[in-house]
Amino acid sequence: MKIAILGHGTVGQGVSEIINDAPAGKGTAQIDIAYVWVRPEKAHERPYYTANYQEILEDPTVDVIVEVLGGLEPARTMILAALEHGKHVVTANKAVVARYLVLFNQMAEKHRVKFYFESSVGGGIPWIINLERALRIDEVDSIHGIFNGTSNFILDQMTKTGASFEDVLKEAQDLGYAEADPSADIDGFDIENKLCISADIAYNTVIEPGDQLLKFGIRNITAADIAFFKEHNWVVKLLGRSLRKEDTYSFIIEPTLYLPGEIEAGVHDNYNYVGLRGTTIGKLSFNGQGAGKLPTAHALMQDLLDLQQGANHLYQDFDQKLVLDNRRSIRNYVIRTTLDLRQSFADYDLQQNGPYWLVADINAEDLHRKIAELIQQDEHIFFACLNRRAQAIL
Amino acid sequence: MKIAILGHGTVGQGVSEIINDAPAGKGTAQIDIAYVWVRPEKAHERPYYTANYQEILEDPTVDVIVEVLGGLEPARTMILAALEHGKHVVTANKAVVARYLVLFNQMAEKHRVKFYFESSVGGGIPWIINLERALRIDEVDSIHGIFNGTSNFILDQMTKTGASFEDVLKEAQDLGYAEADPSADIDGFDIENKLCISADIAYNTVIEPGDQLLKFGIRNITAADIAFFKEHNWVVKLLGRSLRKEDTYSFIIEPTLYLPGEIEAGVHDNYNYVGLRGTTIGKLSFNGQGAGKLPTAHALMQDLLDLQQGANHLYQDFDQKLVLDNRRSIRNYVIRTTLDLRQSFADYDLQQNGPYWLVADINAEDLHRKIAELIQQDEHIFFACLNRRAQAIL
Repeated sequence: MKIAILGHGTVGQGVSEIINDAPAGKGTAQIDIAYVWVRPEKAHERPYYTANYQEILEDPTVDVIVEVLGGLEPARTMILAALEHGKHVVTANKAVVARYLVLFNQMAEKHRVKFYFESSVGGGIPWIINLERALRIDEVDSIHGIFNGTSNFILDQMTKTGASFEDVLKEAQDLGYAEADPSADIDGFDIENKLCISADIAYNTVIEPGDQLLKFGIRNITAADIAFFKEHNWVVKLLGRSLRKEDTYSFIIEPTLYLPGEIEAGVHDNYNYVGLRGTTIGKLSFNGQGAGKLPTAHALMQDLLDLQQGANHLYQDFDQKLVLDNRRSIRNYVIRTTLDLRQSFADYDLQQNGPYWLVADINAEDLHRKIAELIQQDEHIFFACLNRRAQAIL
Repeated sequence: MKIAILGHGTVGQGVSEIINDAPAGKGTAQIDIAYVWVRPEKAHERPYYTANYQEILEDPTVDVIVEVLGGLEPARTMILAALEHGKHVVTANKAVVARYLVLFNQMAEKHRVKFYFESSVGGGIPWIINLERALRIDEVDSIHGIFNGTSNFILDQMTKTGASFEDVLKEAQDLGYAEADPSADIDGFDIENKLCISADIAYNTVIEPGDQLLKFGIRNITAADIAFFKEHNWVVKLLGRSLRKEDTYSFIIEPTLYLPGEIEAGVHDNYNYVGLRGTTIGKLSFNGQGAGKLPTAHALMQDLLDLQQGANHLYQDFDQKLVLDNRRSIRNYVIRTTLDLRQSFADYDLQQNGPYWLVADINAEDLHRKIAELIQQDEHIFFACLNRRAQAIL
């Protein structure tokens, strides 16, 4: 099987490495890299580099396009062109999959090729394939977990060392875990894409990324917050969760507090922990490397081997009509702010302890809407949801 | 696709339930139960029950035999007969798979049918399929985890409530988690079978269950032990682990102590937590329902759907020759005994605190061998291994 790789950054190089180092007995040894497409200014760097995509598209010996450019364009256009030219596409690009999953699937079906994207969620974790396999038998009504390794690394390091957010972010950037512009990782956009893709599959529907989905990241967390949480025996994690109930679904990304004995609290470093709940399988979760060169490349290789072996993934038409409703999720929240919250939360049970407030039994929609107002007056405001087992005493 | 189920206990009834309740769109709706084989004295109980296995074997419309009898015989003979009659076999029976995996595979290959056994390890967790998928790309050199839900339930309940082993075992039996004869679950034999199957696949070898494999269960644990562990901030779990290094492998089943912030310590109730380490995928672990009617039946259904869809599992010949060596695993151990251990462990750093002793840096082979001697004098002796992060101070 011949492939062309679009982009040769970290993950693209990981794919090359796995293929070049493949032991003789493995299926990976039967995959050849025919081309690596790069931007014109880089095309001279290696003999198999090319900037001429048309040449790749028109080469009938190329079976699969592996897209690891990231971002919406030119990834979207190049994926569509590949499918139109009758080539399978495998991608690690969560942004473009979250937005165009249905379009890509329709185009793939029309041209009788496959569009696979295992590596777009959960890095090395075989998440998409197992979600799809569970759906062969079950209805899946819940998707939840720690979908972003960079923010987990930051929170874990802050908890272990007591260091500031800024210092740990800098460390994450030095280690290559975080980008120069860290917004996607720390503000929840990366999780949003991954949770959209997962929920699309789980519910056989289309959820568009956008402001209607509740997102609050960890940009504002301080060493003092971590110390306060520790005093209360809480461990903070950035959680994404979605629950379907009848024709509605919730979609919430927010810092969440666990007890040390809860499994999420044991997810350290840059690991991911992602899970589903199905009718007969019950709760099933995966803990593994959610990013990184070789784990992500491993997941891409899994898609390539499925193509090589003709193993079909689940077919879905994504035609379920569901309504977003975040009012059904009612929890306790801890808010840290310089503001006086008594007026804003007059309708709720409130506890105060210095700059920390505990709001009892508020639905996620109302809580996030109020925070969006309050952040206009206190741009450093931070909050976290208490997971059910965590005791609600400030 | 037509199937015949051998045995109609909990798991067999779970398979019937999933098939009978299948939503119209699912592949499970296209599976028909043609026969359920039961013992002669039960054959009159339902119209589709039969005690005549020959009739099933000779019915050309039966594609798959689903074996959920448990135990070595008549399961082994009936599986072999099914394969010889050109029928695929799917089984949940870890005991028979651990002993005859290679024989069954050879027989299946000879008769051009498949032998699948997803549900034999990890219940509803898609463990075998993902281990096999990882092996399409990686070498896997480590298998480890909490493979038995019943013993995890017992340890977790003892930790939560402070109750005695005997009381919690009784509760587990009342809940249907533990058998009347609980030995397989509490003495490590169930884990031994599951770890044998997993390591066979991981290392492409044959590991026979037997006394050469180190096993120590939880039969002797007391409420006082749990209290002592709590004082030291340790959480006890019954762990199975195997590590391959060059041509050797270790195979150890023993109580193991974790810190509360380690992920294994967050595995509660009757959940399993099983993991592997691969060359490029890194560490990957699964948390889910390791037993129970519907989760186990779900895993059986996954095998049936793979047969229905012609999705082939990994082919292996199990011909790697490896040598068992448990001396490479060197850890700290806590032993509780009425005996004076100074002579037995004269060559090791020892700490004592009442009936508890800490032996430093001892290899697993020597430790288990010494315990096997000491248990002749103190039949209630108990020990646990300290996981690497747990502090070695009594």
